Amino acid sequence: MGIDHTGIDHTAGRTHTRVIACVDTGVDDAMALAYLLASAGECELVGVLAGYGNVDAATAERNTRLVLDLFGRPDIPVFRSSTRPSWADVFVPDAGCAQFHGPDGLGGYVGGGAGETADERRNRPVPDGAIVSVGGYRVDDPHANPAGGWDIVRDHPQSASPTAPDVMCDVRDAHCYGTLHRTVPSSGGQDKSGPLSPAELPPAGHGSGGRERDGVDLLIDAVRRYGRGVTVLATGPLTDVDAAIRRAPDIAGKLRLVMMGGTLTQPGNCWDAVAETNIIQDPEAADRVFHSGADMTMVGLDVTHQCLLPRSAAARWRATGTERGRFLARLADFSIAANRDADPKLFAAGMPLHDPLAAAVALDPTLVSTFDVALRAETATGDFTGVRGRTTGDPVGLVTPDAPRVHVALGVDADRFVGEFTDRLAMACADRPFLRYI
Amino acid sequence: MGIDHTGIDHTAGRTHTRVIACVDTGVDDAMALAYLLASAGECELVGVLAGYGNVDAATAERNTRLVLDLFGRPDIPVFRSSTRPSWADVFVPDAGCAQFHGPDGLGGYVGGGAGETADERRNRPVPDGAIVSVGGYRVDDPHANPAGGWDIVRDHPQSASPTAPDVMCDVRDAHCYGTLHRTVPSSGGQDKSGPLSPAELPPAGHGSGGRERDGVDLLIDAVRRYGRGVTVLATGPLTDVDAAIRRAPDIAGKLRLVMMGGTLTQPGNCWDAVAETNIIQDPEAADRVFHSGADMTMVGLDVTHQCLLPRSAAARWRATGTERGRFLARLADFSIAANRDADPKLFAAGMPLHDPLAAAVALDPTLVSTFDVALRAETATGDFTGVRGRTTGDPVGLVTPDAPRVHVALGVDADRFVGEFTDRLAMACADRPFLRYI
Repeated sequence: MGIDHTGIDHTAGRTHTRVIACVDTGVDDAMALAYLLASAGECELVGVLAGYGNVDAATAERNTRLVLDLFGRPDIPVFRSSTRPSWADVFVPDAGCAQFHGPDGLGGYVGGGAGETADERRNRPVPDGAIVSVGGYRVDDPHANPAGGWDIVRDHPQSASPTAPDVMCDVRDAHCYGTLHRTVPSSGGQDKSGPLSPAELPPAGHGSGGRERDGVDLLIDAVRRYGRGVTVLATGPLTDVDAAIRRAPDIAGKLRLVMMGGTLTQPGNCWDAVAETNIIQDPEAADRVFHSGADMTMVGLDVTHQCLLPRSAAARWRATGTERGRFLARLADFSIAANRDADPKLFAAGMPLHDPLAAAVALDPTLVSTFDVALRAETATGDFTGVRGRTTGDPVGLVTPDAPRVHVALGVDADRFVGEFTDRLAMACADRPFLRYI
Repeated sequence: MGIDHTGIDHTAGRTHTRVIACVDTGVDDAMALAYLLASAGECELVGVLAGYGNVDAATAERNTRLVLDLFGRPDIPVFRSSTRPSWADVFVPDAGCAQFHGPDGLGGYVGGGAGETADERRNRPVPDGAIVSVGGYRVDDPHANPAGGWDIVRDHPQSASPTAPDVMCDVRDAHCYGTLHRTVPSSGGQDKSGPLSPAELPPAGHGSGGRERDGVDLLIDAVRRYGRGVTVLATGPLTDVDAAIRRAPDIAGKLRLVMMGGTLTQPGNCWDAVAETNIIQDPEAADRVFHSGADMTMVGLDVTHQCLLPRSAAARWRATGTERGRFLARLADFSIAANRDADPKLFAAGMPLHDPLAAAVALDPTLVSTFDVALRAETATGDFTGVRGRTTGDPVGLVTPDAPRVHVALGVDADRFVGEFTDRLAMACADRPFLRYI
């Protein structure tokens, strides 16, 4: 029907792209979702998998539904997906999450967190022997100090910096400088390397028709049906995409993936200045996906740090006087201030549009220029291994012509993207009817 | 005279490039020098600065003269230049130098070291308070153990690896796990940040006409005279180039520099798998040069690891039956074996032609495709700073349009380069008269 292997329909003078989004809905995921919905003439959002990352999975699901509702598409299916990295039993957001996304993941628009209260989180049972990820960093023994609850004690000598998470882990030695307390021992650890079990994934309601299959199944089915006629957009950790490929290895060769994450030619944005936040959450998953053979475009800090949303955009959205305008302006104002506080030089002009750029590239690959390279995510820190969470070329690719290549975005038409993004959301704020793809 | 700003002369159907080479002559520097001399029709080698790096400066000078003599150009001036990094008082080669270049820096062709004997090095006086670089890694207090000489004790838990240097320094904390002994306290430390003093640089004999000026002066004079009509080729640490720019800041805007070093999209080749060996020697110098505004092409591991010299090339050179052939074959055989032992997968096909590729790019920039990016060399390791010796994009460049850009080679026509390199040296081995540039 005029749709080529990229999923772009060139018929009738317009293009469209089917998208499945894997999100961890904080501030910029919310903007990316709003952008996809505001691009209804070009984009059919088939479904959303909401997992842990910027926030916990419950909060990501709540936030995702909020955006879909607000922008008039409560019918799009939302699945709560991975609740933890592939390598850990338990995920706990760190202070960096709240710093850059607010306690609710939406810059305080909702107020408070979703799912667990702070007290509930503090008293959450932890299985004996559980491996805990605190914002991507491993805490080997959360039972080491049996005195308290889930309070995280800030005791790293360098944690006074505004970008320090609550718990600083020395990934060199995998020792944690912070202290993570527990209260209630529970059952043993789960299989961390196997696929997500259905029991972990509640049935998706809210527009999904109450079907039993989970979000990973949706992704697998869509890729099997459409091949590269559907684009998987991952704006959080790659845990879900990895789970899908491990559950259905046949999809790897058919999968078109655009991901926000990683950095190849720029420093990272984690405390070690090497890793990028989405990759550090689950380097093992990222490394498997990089080597899977998927047709994969990496939209990392190399380009997202060039796409800064200025205050004027927030003012323009707010001036529409609509709830959508207030919502988007709140997200932008919060993130602009948080980024400026963290790095006044790099983010003087505004917030980096991480996830929105990836969403835009999913619809229009011409926004970026790419460098094809065999890629790896390093999974260990130390002599002869590198730095955990670093995305770098895989040397094997230099001497193996048929090694899978990732299209890494190194150049971006930032002015065009930021302009189109601002305009499109301004139109969406004005509550004009959306052009819907039939 | 038909020479454009790149120094390439397109008259008379041929091109030529004036070159000043800053070398630390180990195996691949020697090959690079031989290649320049074998390219006399395209290249006029104006002079050579030989400094510390793969070997100590005395050995580098000895090895450089040996190559110039063997390939028929003893008239080219050679200067012994920097003996230590800009940040240290003393430089000591580490075991990695001997591992990849042989004890003499020439794969055992000469046998033994030059300059100091092992006993002399062991008993070399060290000034009180001296900062010592062991193969690029800082030893804060070489007097900590007053019992012995300059023996380096291998006691790092991970040093059993074949690529571990004698002394393993934890650059995270700048503590050294090895033990470096001294015997004779001496005078205080030198100024480490100022330009090289003439007293440090012996008058250059051997074809230099006994003039008093040092190698850095030669470099400065040439750039002032020819601008980008001369190319500075740096195949070692950037200490000399940095010293020239600091001594004569006016040359930065006129300087055309092609350097071997760094890595942007691939892991490093130091023990931490992040830094590249030339950069780790003097990250401070590299960072200053990156920001100097020079017209600079970085030929790093991104491309040199794609250019592997096979055993067959060594056999072909040896088969010429000449001393030049025996020399080059010895270098190649030694390095091919050392690299294969260090990484059997990456170097299965041969030795990486690091310095020779940079030399070739100086003569023919079309061998590589480049990515322009503001670059930095990280000078500290730790939270919010990165990893000392890492070459990465400078984020300031993302938001500062007029920040100096470095042309980083990311693609290379490896087959063409390796083929031409092998052929050209084979011709040179055959002792045919060289085409000299008049």
